[in-house]
Amino acid sequence: MGSAEPKEPGRPDFFNEYWKRSRLCGQVGEDAIGEEIRVNGWVRRRRDLGGILFIELWDHSGLVQVVFNPDLKPDAPDVHRRGGDLRSEYCLAVRGKVTRRPEGTENPALATGKVEIVAEDFLLLSSSEPLPFEVGDATDKVDENLRLTYRYLDLRRERMQHNLRVRSKLYSFTRNYLESNAFVEIETPMLTKATPEGARDYLVPSRVNPGTFYALPQSPQLFKQILMISGFDRYYQIVKCFRDEDLRADRQPEFTQVDLEMSYIVEDDVMTMIEGYMKGLFKTILSEDIPTPFRRVDYWDAIDLYGSDKPDLRIPLELVDLGPVFREASFEPFRKILENGGVVRALPLPGGASLSRKEISDIEEKTKKWGASGLGVFQCKENDLKGPLVKFMNEEERDRLKTIGGLKDGDALFVVADSSRLKACTVLGTLRLELGKTRGLIDESAWKFLWVVHFPMFEWSEEERRWSAMHHPFTSPVLEQLDGMETSPGNILARAYDVVLNGNEVGGGSIRIHDSAVQRKVFSLLGIGEEQARERFGFFLDALSYGTPPHGGIALGVDRLAMLLCGGQSIRDVMAFPKTQKAQCLLSKAPDVVEDARLAELHIECIPVED
Amino acid sequence: MGSAEPKEPGRPDFFNEYWKRSRLCGQVGEDAIGEEIRVNGWVRRRRDLGGILFIELWDHSGLVQVVFNPDLKPDAPDVHRRGGDLRSEYCLAVRGKVTRRPEGTENPALATGKVEIVAEDFLLLSSSEPLPFEVGDATDKVDENLRLTYRYLDLRRERMQHNLRVRSKLYSFTRNYLESNAFVEIETPMLTKATPEGARDYLVPSRVNPGTFYALPQSPQLFKQILMISGFDRYYQIVKCFRDEDLRADRQPEFTQVDLEMSYIVEDDVMTMIEGYMKGLFKTILSEDIPTPFRRVDYWDAIDLYGSDKPDLRIPLELVDLGPVFREASFEPFRKILENGGVVRALPLPGGASLSRKEISDIEEKTKKWGASGLGVFQCKENDLKGPLVKFMNEEERDRLKTIGGLKDGDALFVVADSSRLKACTVLGTLRLELGKTRGLIDESAWKFLWVVHFPMFEWSEEERRWSAMHHPFTSPVLEQLDGMETSPGNILARAYDVVLNGNEVGGGSIRIHDSAVQRKVFSLLGIGEEQARERFGFFLDALSYGTPPHGGIALGVDRLAMLLCGGQSIRDVMAFPKTQKAQCLLSKAPDVVEDARLAELHIECIPVED
Repeated sequence: MGSAEPKEPGRPDFFNEYWKRSRLCGQVGEDAIGEEIRVNGWVRRRRDLGGILFIELWDHSGLVQVVFNPDLKPDAPDVHRRGGDLRSEYCLAVRGKVTRRPEGTENPALATGKVEIVAEDFLLLSSSEPLPFEVGDATDKVDENLRLTYRYLDLRRERMQHNLRVRSKLYSFTRNYLESNAFVEIETPMLTKATPEGARDYLVPSRVNPGTFYALPQSPQLFKQILMISGFDRYYQIVKCFRDEDLRADRQPEFTQVDLEMSYIVEDDVMTMIEGYMKGLFKTILSEDIPTPFRRVDYWDAIDLYGSDKPDLRIPLELVDLGPVFREASFEPFRKILENGGVVRALPLPGGASLSRKEISDIEEKTKKWGASGLGVFQCKENDLKGPLVKFMNEEERDRLKTIGGLKDGDALFVVADSSRLKACTVLGTLRLELGKTRGLIDESAWKFLWVVHFPMFEWSEEERRWSAMHHPFTSPVLEQLDGMETSPGNILARAYDVVLNGNEVGGGSIRIHDSAVQRKVFSLLGIGEEQARERFGFFLDALSYGTPPHGGIALGVDRLAMLLCGGQSIRDVMAFPKTQKAQCLLSKAPDVVEDARLAELHIECIPVED
Repeated sequence: MGSAEPKEPGRPDFFNEYWKRSRLCGQVGEDAIGEEIRVNGWVRRRRDLGGILFIELWDHSGLVQVVFNPDLKPDAPDVHRRGGDLRSEYCLAVRGKVTRRPEGTENPALATGKVEIVAEDFLLLSSSEPLPFEVGDATDKVDENLRLTYRYLDLRRERMQHNLRVRSKLYSFTRNYLESNAFVEIETPMLTKATPEGARDYLVPSRVNPGTFYALPQSPQLFKQILMISGFDRYYQIVKCFRDEDLRADRQPEFTQVDLEMSYIVEDDVMTMIEGYMKGLFKTILSEDIPTPFRRVDYWDAIDLYGSDKPDLRIPLELVDLGPVFREASFEPFRKILENGGVVRALPLPGGASLSRKEISDIEEKTKKWGASGLGVFQCKENDLKGPLVKFMNEEERDRLKTIGGLKDGDALFVVADSSRLKACTVLGTLRLELGKTRGLIDESAWKFLWVVHFPMFEWSEEERRWSAMHHPFTSPVLEQLDGMETSPGNILARAYDVVLNGNEVGGGSIRIHDSAVQRKVFSLLGIGEEQARERFGFFLDALSYGTPPHGGIALGVDRLAMLLCGGQSIRDVMAFPKTQKAQCLLSKAPDVVEDARLAELHIECIPVED
């Protein structure tokens, strides 16, 4: 703390060397006994025993007890008197001598619990208004809006101190790891061009170029690809990105990504790099050993087995295909669906035979909300198959159901039949998550990573009657399928990969198209005409045509990753100054109105909103 | 490169393990002789000797020569034929054997100059359009607008590769240094509230909150102070900041700062921290030993001695005060100015006696442009004092001029008299810089750091008839002067410090006000009323009143620092994607027009610009 030169202590009425801490509060241990020290911090707890006053002084390192005892310091009577005026979160500098606490008064919960500082003098650095909520309180019972309004008090709480420090460690590990793997940190612009696909951009009017707008980046996608074209080989950045979406619970208008890109590589190189990263990160922050390589699951296998493209593998339930049971069965509705190319899928629930009629009907209601036209339910009680459909099945079909459905005595089986494989699986996947949570099937201590790979390249939008890119339009199709791209786009798989942790997509990436002819073909399939393509990202098509290396990369969602590492429920708890679901900062009151003159300078005006 | 598992080589018609580099181009040294290798890169230079074809293949690590010789590879005749189609910046994967170059054909300029790769096969990864300028060309003769339009080609040049890698190293050093000094990296919001003072904000319309706007931050000033109030003790961030100014040569609408803040400290702590930082940075990047501590110069001393608050100490010239010469002198105009509280200051120029009449009159012209009402010139030739004013001075006055002005035989002395000390000194300071450059007085190899401290707290604006903050309104006045603040604001000094390198302000900071009463007093002196203060930064005044520790910090301009470390002339040369002086990105064509529907969503419309 400070330089090695001896310093003038300075005037005792100002904060200077005379008052500057010689130890952090949390580091006043037994080794300090007998030492004349100076500590700086906030009054946390305070006990006034009339004659003697105790305060716990806090800084980020911890708490230490300070005693104001006129008997021990008869030469400084006003110190005790002035101490009586101290209140919670007053900010102080204290000079005093460290002594051992009297026997029986130690506090084993504190690292400094065996000592106390006998105050010789103190300087009140600043007082505090009465607090809107208790800062020392460890619980999260305080209303979140109040916490966000007084964020500076909220951030003094141990949990928030911990969370933001973990996030900082995450950054530090990330950079060291990537730099030791030859990645170069390069900044891409924040004031950039509106992006073609995806969510809404935030726009920034240009004063110097009337009538035009910058966009804040949704991701540095095109710029990082251009850096590969520029020969930088391995790029990374921890970067703010922006999406003007209607906010769901776990979204923020600005969010942070670990963004990286590599040249002359294939999928394996990115995935191995990220596996090493996650292994190191979890070891560094949580001392957890994460096994690598991660399991890799094809998109359609993930849908078939877990009904999700970001399955939570902590839940020990898997979907099964009942096609073989009902293909030739006497129960017509299922047979018909199968004959017409539909599916009959099921989720077995061990122990589910004990579900009550009420519980079953609740589950039925939910699956309908999720989009199922109906839910078939079987329960196996005392080796007897029960359920409304049982009467339509013969002995052999019932046996086959038990075998294929993995249905043992005491279990239940939930069945969804639908013309859409994706729909049937997704409903059961949602049920899988729900049962995992409500029935306590999730191993909360587990960290289950996997890769989901081979996503479809294109999705058909019935509404818009056109194909759209499932990842983004710069993702490369699987090369062996290139020739068939125009004839059957629905079958083409993308060289895309998502990394999933405990049911959270924590990152996604792909090998990119590095051939401008292929890029044009993809645009054309997406219904982006030649002219439109030129206008939107002509500069990028140009760049592709000056010698582009094969390249690919990934972006990791830092907020979500930090949240998981902190065991939090909301990304707001790992951000210093988050916004609400109305995209407002309750602390600073942004966004706010602006003088008309300012808008005129920007060549814009507000349109009155109709009621 | 890649995981340890053995891999399928894959189909030779796609880029995969079969083609992926086993060495970087620049790392094909003598130790590789005899090795069957794979390299990936771009065709840089190409020589076709009819029978034999040579290409230099480039990646970020360097160049290696590849030979297509049908005599050496008679089993692969089409490789040589296809090689003939290769052109500059085509992107390739090459398989071949490393051999020693025939004697006499080595290239000592290349790290790989003793070897070459005999091509056995290659895959053209992507071709290139004809280049708009030569990428291999080391000179900067190419028009900058062309370079910015084809930035991906410009960035392939050795110098730009070097610059951006140095910048990345600067980041890396910065983070390691600050983290080893217990700083925590915390992100502050990009979508924030319009700031009160300083330059224009970039505004971002809110879709969700009609009629309101976010501002992009000019600096995280208030948020970092709030982090100190939140108990984080030491914060840092390498952060993008934004200013909507009319751009001067060396400004960008978005720029990057190393931003830090510390609690329970005084000026010395920040300055010592930054001195250690600069010492380490210059050692790491340039192997330069920077002496510390840096010299500290009071603002008014810097003005008096160098006529600048960011003096370039590489120039061995200092201003002198001629007050003692002319106070009682017979020359009336100077005496009058002194009597009325003005100053007579001078810049001696060793060797300046040889300046011609023409050169002198050019200098006079320039000083007038800079604001001088006139320039007095003395030259000392053969111990004889010359100049238009000499005739108004007696012998004793001439001697005193020589002594006090430090005027030796062969020298010149430039004199400015003005009612304003700042004006007189600044004119001479500008002349000092000019003479330093034009007369080659600058030691280009030197790194001259200093601190400028004790800036005035307030500046009087004649135009607006009010005081304004010289740094920003959160800067603390010198505590000992606090009581006099309201009676004589012009005399109050600020606890501010700028770090200056070779005449560039590379950083500035201050100890902040930590007392909300003092903060209110400063606002009131700045003419910011109670109500206005509440509206603009009520949240910050609130925060100050819940127990604020003494704190201070600094922000360093990364772009300028990186530029100096790279020996560059423009910050654009250390930014991957800079904007022009019209705030445009020539690469992506941002800013751009936006569909009216998009604007309507944001509740704004454009105002037509009048011609």
